[in-house]
Amino acid sequence: MKKNYLFTPGPTPIPEEVLLEMAKPIFHHRTPQFRELLAETNQLLKEVFQTNNHVYTFASSGTGAMEAAFVNIVSPGDEIIVVSGGKFGARFVEFAQVFGVISHTLDVPWGASVDIHEIDSLLRQHPNVKAVFTSLCETSTGVCFPVEDIARIVRGTNAVLVVDAISGLCADVLKTDEWGVDIVIGGSQKGLMTPPGLSFLTLSQKAWALAGTSRLPKYYFDIKKYRKAGDACDTPFTPATGLVIALRKALGLIVAEGVQVCNERHARLARATRAAMEALGLRLFAERPSNALTAVKIPDQLDAKTFITYLRDELGAVMAGGQGQLKNKIFRIAHLGYQNEFDLLGGIGAVEKALLHMGHTFDLGAGLKSFQMMINSDTLVNIQ
Amino acid sequence: MKKNYLFTPGPTPIPEEVLLEMAKPIFHHRTPQFRELLAETNQLLKEVFQTNNHVYTFASSGTGAMEAAFVNIVSPGDEIIVVSGGKFGARFVEFAQVFGVISHTLDVPWGASVDIHEIDSLLRQHPNVKAVFTSLCETSTGVCFPVEDIARIVRGTNAVLVVDAISGLCADVLKTDEWGVDIVIGGSQKGLMTPPGLSFLTLSQKAWALAGTSRLPKYYFDIKKYRKAGDACDTPFTPATGLVIALRKALGLIVAEGVQVCNERHARLARATRAAMEALGLRLFAERPSNALTAVKIPDQLDAKTFITYLRDELGAVMAGGQGQLKNKIFRIAHLGYQNEFDLLGGIGAVEKALLHMGHTFDLGAGLKSFQMMINSDTLVNIQ
Repeated sequence: MKKNYLFTPGPTPIPEEVLLEMAKPIFHHRTPQFRELLAETNQLLKEVFQTNNHVYTFASSGTGAMEAAFVNIVSPGDEIIVVSGGKFGARFVEFAQVFGVISHTLDVPWGASVDIHEIDSLLRQHPNVKAVFTSLCETSTGVCFPVEDIARIVRGTNAVLVVDAISGLCADVLKTDEWGVDIVIGGSQKGLMTPPGLSFLTLSQKAWALAGTSRLPKYYFDIKKYRKAGDACDTPFTPATGLVIALRKALGLIVAEGVQVCNERHARLARATRAAMEALGLRLFAERPSNALTAVKIPDQLDAKTFITYLRDELGAVMAGGQGQLKNKIFRIAHLGYQNEFDLLGGIGAVEKALLHMGHTFDLGAGLKSFQMMINSDTLVNIQ
Repeated sequence: MKKNYLFTPGPTPIPEEVLLEMAKPIFHHRTPQFRELLAETNQLLKEVFQTNNHVYTFASSGTGAMEAAFVNIVSPGDEIIVVSGGKFGARFVEFAQVFGVISHTLDVPWGASVDIHEIDSLLRQHPNVKAVFTSLCETSTGVCFPVEDIARIVRGTNAVLVVDAISGLCADVLKTDEWGVDIVIGGSQKGLMTPPGLSFLTLSQKAWALAGTSRLPKYYFDIKKYRKAGDACDTPFTPATGLVIALRKALGLIVAEGVQVCNERHARLARATRAAMEALGLRLFAERPSNALTAVKIPDQLDAKTFITYLRDELGAVMAGGQGQLKNKIFRIAHLGYQNEFDLLGGIGAVEKALLHMGHTFDLGAGLKSFQMMINSDTLVNIQ
């Protein structure tokens, strides 16, 4: 009776009622039926993205919306700042290279957070910077960047702030309009509990003004085409209908829980998972950890590949290894999307079992106990 | 007991067993499990695309693969030829405008086929042309362009032939390698019987050589990234896992039927549908009709919008109206993908019922009888 459990930072588990939506017969997208669905979905997206601006949906992976955020606001020769502290931050630097844009890259050591004074200083040195790119949660390191503080600095300049919230959304707090974040990028297969294949973009008025000046060639990701179609509650190209239907259901679940409550659930799971890992004698990797995932250093004496593979193939607990320079150095447990404390107990039990199997020395059950203590700390306090 | 029937040229009905694939729990894409699925899917795609070259899958609408076909092979200032005889042919001309490429456009009247001598003549006039873009089936008019003949001409030049087979694939014959077609573009929601959200691209060696020279900036649709990842049976960005799982099932059904038998089924349905429309006194629109859909002129005395809406909202038979310059002039019945003769009898019955409701004068039942005669013509001949 082996079962599979997804503890990866995307894709994340899909609620059964969302999966079943996709088993329903498909319908045509140029109909009142679809326009109604889209209108409802767009309204829910605004609530989850915490913005009054329209949230546009692309049929693409998250990288598609990242490219859209880039090509719609800059022009060849423009200057930008990229806060790059992992694989996904580095992607914006790659865009700059490909599209002929000058990136003043703030290279943050992987696992570290950013010193916002450095962003401030870079902005003063380069007053012509058009945009600052950062992540909310950098998926490859598990770091949550201080977006609220970054926004406070960028908001006073002519630059727009672009936040890759693909893995952070729903898990880490992101008050788009309240903080003055100009562009937010999202993806379906993370906190939004929907299969991969949809990505999202929302733009402030300041970002739209910049978009009006962009001279990079674009077609499929040309946001103006989406705005034009969106005004009639339509899409410029055939939408990924089945995924949109699934998304609507998933967004409904998130809004019913409440975005703030959803954030708090992720924060509680993250705190308890960190406590569990430390109780096992493992060391955490991220300086400023995200609520979406916990990155854990793999002890030197442990073979990373064997550990991850044993978890996946023997125990059915799928976790992610390290990417790029972190390959074989960390593993990542996601507590993202459709996950609760009882799911995580299974995941932590699996980590303990894999450590035991590999002959690692630790206190068996200590991870589970710490998780349980931390998750129930409020109740414990009330009892005492 | 109203039911909905999709007779639109995309999305098309999804087989129940394909829908159910998407209701299964999702799994992670960087696993042997997904690589095996992808390898099997890629092999099936080659059979359906009738090529020995790799068929790459994008998470995007069909337009994404059209853009990929464009930006990967040309450079600013290059010359191309576009055979433009409808909304989708015209899209390549739009790409040329956006990406700074010179299009020698062969404007074919909508509904007409192309005179291949004109392509030959254009190629002689412009010997530096890098690529010729055409459609197999132009979805907006229902015309099937003579790709085999076009390929015979282009093959002898330095130019590559790019064929948009998004709606034509599986319905119209397309022998990619045998005819020497260099680039074929596909989409999931047509003959491939899968929901929208995936698009496809295959390139010949000649096309790859041209891709090596392209200087247009690209990232998400950069085919070299897909080739690099594909060599390890992987994807450069998160794939639309659920849709790929559905696709594998659908491709299995097509290959089990046999691509040639599948083409013949579409041809039979198309012939019988045309016979039915003519028996109702309606006039066909396409000069060289595709097997994917039948475009029918709407009689002057009939209000197009009322007719299409009545079919959809009262009878549950969803058909497409005209697009662009054909708005309110034609309607389009698709017999594409997961459709058989008994489904089409329902569709033709609905067209007759809508005509009757609108007071149109015609011989009630004549469409159904003609369809039945044409579909069973082989058997009738044997009996006589």
